Amino acid sequence: MKNFIVSKSRRVRSTTFTSRIEKQGVKSYTVYNHMLLPTTFCTPEEEYVHLKEHVQVWDVSVQREIEILGKDAYKLIQLMTCRNLSESKIGSCYYAPLVDAKGGLINDPLIYKLEDDRWRVCIADSDVILFAKGIAEAKNLNVNIFETNIDTLAVQGPKSFKLMEKVFGEKIRKLNFFKFNFYEFNKNKFLISRSGYSKQGGFEIHTENAESALDLYDYFFEIGEPFNLRPGAPNHPERIEGGLLSYGNDMDNGDNPFECGFEKYVDLESDIIFLGKESLKKIKKKGIERKLMGVKINTKTMDLSSSCFINDENGNRIGELRSGAYSPKFKMIVGIAMLKKNFTNPGYKFKINHNGNVISGEVCNLPIN
Amino acid sequence: MKNFIVSKSRRVRSTTFTSRIEKQGVKSYTVYNHMLLPTTFCTPEEEYVHLKEHVQVWDVSVQREIEILGKDAYKLIQLMTCRNLSESKIGSCYYAPLVDAKGGLINDPLIYKLEDDRWRVCIADSDVILFAKGIAEAKNLNVNIFETNIDTLAVQGPKSFKLMEKVFGEKIRKLNFFKFNFYEFNKNKFLISRSGYSKQGGFEIHTENAESALDLYDYFFEIGEPFNLRPGAPNHPERIEGGLLSYGNDMDNGDNPFECGFEKYVDLESDIIFLGKESLKKIKKKGIERKLMGVKINTKTMDLSSSCFINDENGNRIGELRSGAYSPKFKMIVGIAMLKKNFTNPGYKFKINHNGNVISGEVCNLPIN
Repeated sequence: MKNFIVSKSRRVRSTTFTSRIEKQGVKSYTVYNHMLLPTTFCTPEEEYVHLKEHVQVWDVSVQREIEILGKDAYKLIQLMTCRNLSESKIGSCYYAPLVDAKGGLINDPLIYKLEDDRWRVCIADSDVILFAKGIAEAKNLNVNIFETNIDTLAVQGPKSFKLMEKVFGEKIRKLNFFKFNFYEFNKNKFLISRSGYSKQGGFEIHTENAESALDLYDYFFEIGEPFNLRPGAPNHPERIEGGLLSYGNDMDNGDNPFECGFEKYVDLESDIIFLGKESLKKIKKKGIERKLMGVKINTKTMDLSSSCFINDENGNRIGELRSGAYSPKFKMIVGIAMLKKNFTNPGYKFKINHNGNVISGEVCNLPIN
Repeated sequence: MKNFIVSKSRRVRSTTFTSRIEKQGVKSYTVYNHMLLPTTFCTPEEEYVHLKEHVQVWDVSVQREIEILGKDAYKLIQLMTCRNLSESKIGSCYYAPLVDAKGGLINDPLIYKLEDDRWRVCIADSDVILFAKGIAEAKNLNVNIFETNIDTLAVQGPKSFKLMEKVFGEKIRKLNFFKFNFYEFNKNKFLISRSGYSKQGGFEIHTENAESALDLYDYFFEIGEPFNLRPGAPNHPERIEGGLLSYGNDMDNGDNPFECGFEKYVDLESDIIFLGKESLKKIKKKGIERKLMGVKINTKTMDLSSSCFINDENGNRIGELRSGAYSPKFKMIVGIAMLKKNFTNPGYKFKINHNGNVISGEVCNLPIN
C-alpha cells in the first residue's frame, strides 16, 4: 500500500499532547471526531507485543466528551440509548449503544454519571452532540449540552497498575473496572477511570488543563523507564482479538444492536423511554439476519482500507470483512465481519477475493482466542 | 513542518474515485465527513495558478448529501436554517447556514430542492444527519432521512465551460449559477449543478453509480488535454482570497451567523420557524463583538495546523487566525481571522507571534482583492 500525507488544519484539531508525541516519533495519524488520533510509532506488530507485556501511554483525546447538564439530563441520555440507565450510579461508567428511531446505531460511547443531573458522553467517531441538541431543542428539554475541553490519556498494559500507583499513590489500585474517581498529582486533580480500549488493563486520565496535563505527561516518561513505558496508540490486532468494536469500522448506522452482539445492553421490557424502542421490539420479534463475528484469514497482509466481501465456497456473497489486522499471536490476519446468520458458526470456512487472489478463512467467536 | 502518514480504514471511507486519483499521483489527504478528501497533487501554489487559467476535476465526494424526503421535509429543513426557504424553487441550490437553538453554527450546506417534499443537504464537515434525525424523531415528523450514495466531481476553472460542453452538449452552457438539472453522458443521467468551492467558475456532477461515474471520469481525462485538464482539489489560497468559508476552519459551533458575515441569510422578520430564531434575535439586538475578516500577513510560510492568536501593537490579544495559505498573487500569506469588532477596519495593522517571531499583518475585506 502506498503512503499518503495527512494535511493538517484547524478543522482537524491537534490535541494537548500532539507536540509531545511528534517529538516522540509518531509516524501516522487517523482523524477521529475532527481531531488527530496517532496510530503508530513503530509497527502495529511490535506495539502489540509491547502492549501485552509492558505499559503504554496513549493520546486518545479524540474520545471527545459531551457534557449534558441540567434537570432533564437523564431523560435526554436515556432517550438516546437502549441501555437502561435508570439505576445507574454516580462514579460509574456505562458502555451504552446509542440508537436512532429506526434502531440503527449512532455511536457506542462510555457514559459517565458525575451527578444526577450531570453526565458525560465519551464518544466514538460521530457528532453525538448534534443528535443530543436536535432532540433536546425539539423537545424543549431543560439541559445544557456542550463539548468539554477534556483531552484524555490512556495508560494501558499489565504494568499500568504499578506505574499509576507510583504517580497517584496506592489508592488508585482500589479503583474497580468501569468506576471513576478524582486523584491528585502535583496539586492538580484528575478524573481517572478504570477503562480503556484494550484488554490489557489500565486507566484513562481525563485532563482539563493543558499545563497540568503536560506536566503529568512528562512525568510519566521521566519515571517510566523501569516499566518499559512507551508512547502508543489503540492497537488494531489487540482490540480485534479482544472483541472491542470500532464504530465506523465494524458497525455503523446501517446496523442494529442485536446484529452487533449488544443484546445485554438492550432493555425492551422496562418502562424506560428511548427513541428506537418500538423499532428494536420489531427487530427482535422478527429476528436478525446477520451478525458480527470474529474471523481468521490465511494470509499475513491485506489492503484493509475499505470493507471487502466474504463468499461461501461457491462464490456466493455471505458477508463483508469490516476490520482486519495481522495478529502476531495467530500469525495471520484476524478480523471482524458482518455475516449472514446461516454462516456464523465458529469453524465455518469461507473465501475472500482479494487483489485477484482467493484467500481462505474461518469464522470464530469474539473475543478471538 | 514534518509530514505524517494518514492511516486508512473502513471508518475513513474511500470514494468512487480514490483508485483513480491515486494512480494520478495524489500526495496528501485530509479527512472530511469520515471520508478521504485529496488535498494536493503537486503544490498548492502551482495548483492555484493552474486553476485560475485552465480546468481541474476534483473528487469532492466528501460533500456528503443527506436526503430528506416526505410530507414534513420542508418543515424540518426550515427548522435547521435561519435562511428563509419558504419561497425556494425546484431546480435551485441554496447556501444556508444551519444553526442550533443558541444560534451557533452547525454547518453551512448547499441545499438542493428536488421536489416539494424531497431535498438534499450537501454538507460541510459535521454530521448534520444526526441533528436532522434528532429533531425529526423528537418531533415525530413525517420524513425519511438518509445519507445518499452520491459521490461528487467538481469541474472548476475558466475552461470548465468548454470542457463540460464537449461532454454534455451545448445546453449545459444555459445552466445558471446555483441552478441544477439532469444531463446525459453515455446514456447515463447525471444531476449537475452550476456550483463549486472556487471562484473560477464551474460545475458539480453528482454521481450515483460507480460504473458510470468512472466512465465519465476517464472520459474527462481522455479528452482533457486540449483544455490542459488536471486532477485537483479545493485550493486554500484561492478559496481564502475568494472569501469562501470553511466550516471547522473559519467558523464552528462557537460562532453565530452575524459574526461570519451571513446577515443576508438570516430572516428574523418573516414567520418562518427555526430553532435558533429567538437566540439570533437577541444576538442581533445586542450587536456582535467580533467578526470574520480577511488578513494579509507579511511572511511566506507559517505552520497553520491550528489557530494562532492575533495581537495589537501592544501585544494585547484582538483575535485569532483560523485559516491561512501562501498566495501566489500577493506573495504573502492570506488568511481568515476572527477579530474583535474594534479591530476590523480594513488597513488595521496587527502582530502575530509565530514560532518565536513577531510578524506583522493587515486587516482586509473578504473577498481579498
